[in-house]
Amino acid sequence: MAQTNSMGGMVSLIGAGPGDPELITVRGLRVLREADVVLYDALVDERLLAECRTGAELIDVGKRAAGAEPPPPNPSHHNALAQERINALLVAKAREGRRVVRLKGGDPLIFGRAGEELEALAAAGISCEIVPGVTAATAAAAQAQLPLTRRAAGGSLAGSSRGVLLITGHPAAGTAAAGTTASAAVSWESVAAIAPSVTVCVYMGLKNLPQIARRLLDAGLAPQTCVTIVSNASLPSAQVFETTLAGAAAAAGSDGADNATDGLPSPALVLISSNSPQHYVSPPPRK
Amino acid sequence: MAQTNSMGGMVSLIGAGPGDPELITVRGLRVLREADVVLYDALVDERLLAECRTGAELIDVGKRAAGAEPPPPNPSHHNALAQERINALLVAKAREGRRVVRLKGGDPLIFGRAGEELEALAAAGISCEIVPGVTAATAAAAQAQLPLTRRAAGGSLAGSSRGVLLITGHPAAGTAAAGTTASAAVSWESVAAIAPSVTVCVYMGLKNLPQIARRLLDAGLAPQTCVTIVSNASLPSAQVFETTLAGAAAAAGSDGADNATDGLPSPALVLISSNSPQHYVSPPPRK
Repeated sequence: MAQTNSMGGMVSLIGAGPGDPELITVRGLRVLREADVVLYDALVDERLLAECRTGAELIDVGKRAAGAEPPPPNPSHHNALAQERINALLVAKAREGRRVVRLKGGDPLIFGRAGEELEALAAAGISCEIVPGVTAATAAAAQAQLPLTRRAAGGSLAGSSRGVLLITGHPAAGTAAAGTTASAAVSWESVAAIAPSVTVCVYMGLKNLPQIARRLLDAGLAPQTCVTIVSNASLPSAQVFETTLAGAAAAAGSDGADNATDGLPSPALVLISSNSPQHYVSPPPRK
Repeated sequence: MAQTNSMGGMVSLIGAGPGDPELITVRGLRVLREADVVLYDALVDERLLAECRTGAELIDVGKRAAGAEPPPPNPSHHNALAQERINALLVAKAREGRRVVRLKGGDPLIFGRAGEELEALAAAGISCEIVPGVTAATAAAAQAQLPLTRRAAGGSLAGSSRGVLLITGHPAAGTAAAGTTASAAVSWESVAAIAPSVTVCVYMGLKNLPQIARRLLDAGLAPQTCVTIVSNASLPSAQVFETTLAGAAAAAGSDGADNATDGLPSPALVLISSNSPQHYVSPPPRK
């Protein structure tokens, strides 16, 4: 699919997967090992970068989930770059005729802003291929052993989940700002309307979970709806915590009050299941 | 995470990815190579099975996407087995103390009926781990170079996609049968309500696409909504075809009439994007 341009340079957008460096694809790892230049995000594991060939240029472009702490300063890496600078860097490195990899957490096309990079590369006439990756929602579900879709026994629809909705809980990315059109942002009302028949996976949703839960309750979703929070899915530090929509909303009115989810680290996925999910192993104890 | 039981047997549910055998994860391939017994689906590539160690027992359990043609009879493989027999086989092989792999197309927890297998294994007290995989929707999006989420330039919400909805177009799995409760199946009305702000990915949706499109039009989705069909994503035989919701619905009233999508092979993913998706490369010509 991918073709090199007249200068020989091209860009591969690669999904690094959800955390565990072994959850990159075989193809992603192969292309990474062949790269001349690698632009990588903050959430990418150092062990993946160690797979790059000697002499490859590694550039930390520092993008991370909203709300995550900035990494400690590292003088061997470039500073974090705005998206525009990342786009320009991809174009410039490819124009030097080099094999460029843009390594992103999860899958490049889900909450990864790949569209802006693809647009810049297309405008510059630079060839690009995309190597998909395991997105965080499926890793979180694997960690909790919680099927995202489920046919109930005997063909009953009760207890089933007929689809999966992936949304973000970060206000800048996911909710309508005042005055914007309702058609262009995911409204919590439309989420609440479809939530009873699907599993809703909220990316970057931990910080705003009480507000999200309250919005969904206000929109009519049942208080006993199951909420499963998975932190650091696929890593040894993974944690699984379960509550209900009512429980998740409880801390929303009391700023600074203890919140059952306060101790959970980011990145975290929030899985919302109206038909009580079946967990097939006990989640690990907290702390 | 995974622990062996007292007999030493355990089961790994592994996502084989969307088609290209190189799109399995590094971890999935490692565990597959160590397996004593592998139960695999029809859509799994033979080149992945060739990675199994000499002496591994390979069992074709023959599950495939609804509507796909059955494979030619192969006397070296077991016949296709019903889900109950697959569950029983997983339990029996693990109880022999062997390392069992259940290899599924895509990701095990998305439209893979893993819930039934997890339930059977838990009931039998058999340990299980899940290795997530690349789900077909992200491979289809990578093939079409179509971002599933997208922030429009300048922060505008126009042209953006703030989430992803994964549903199935197979009636037995995805739509409410007459008399069932509306809350337990995905209604096309709730899909149409959220579709303007997300990318809708329909698994197993090619065969019923005219009916699906008409239902979505009836529910109020705009006729000019973009529909991108990706067949055999990630494989050399991949095809990308674009139409609109109105175009996809056009053949619905005329049984047997030529349909623009008739020549597209399965498996196929249908991507429905209200805000015109940006394709950054030309899709390959048909035929």
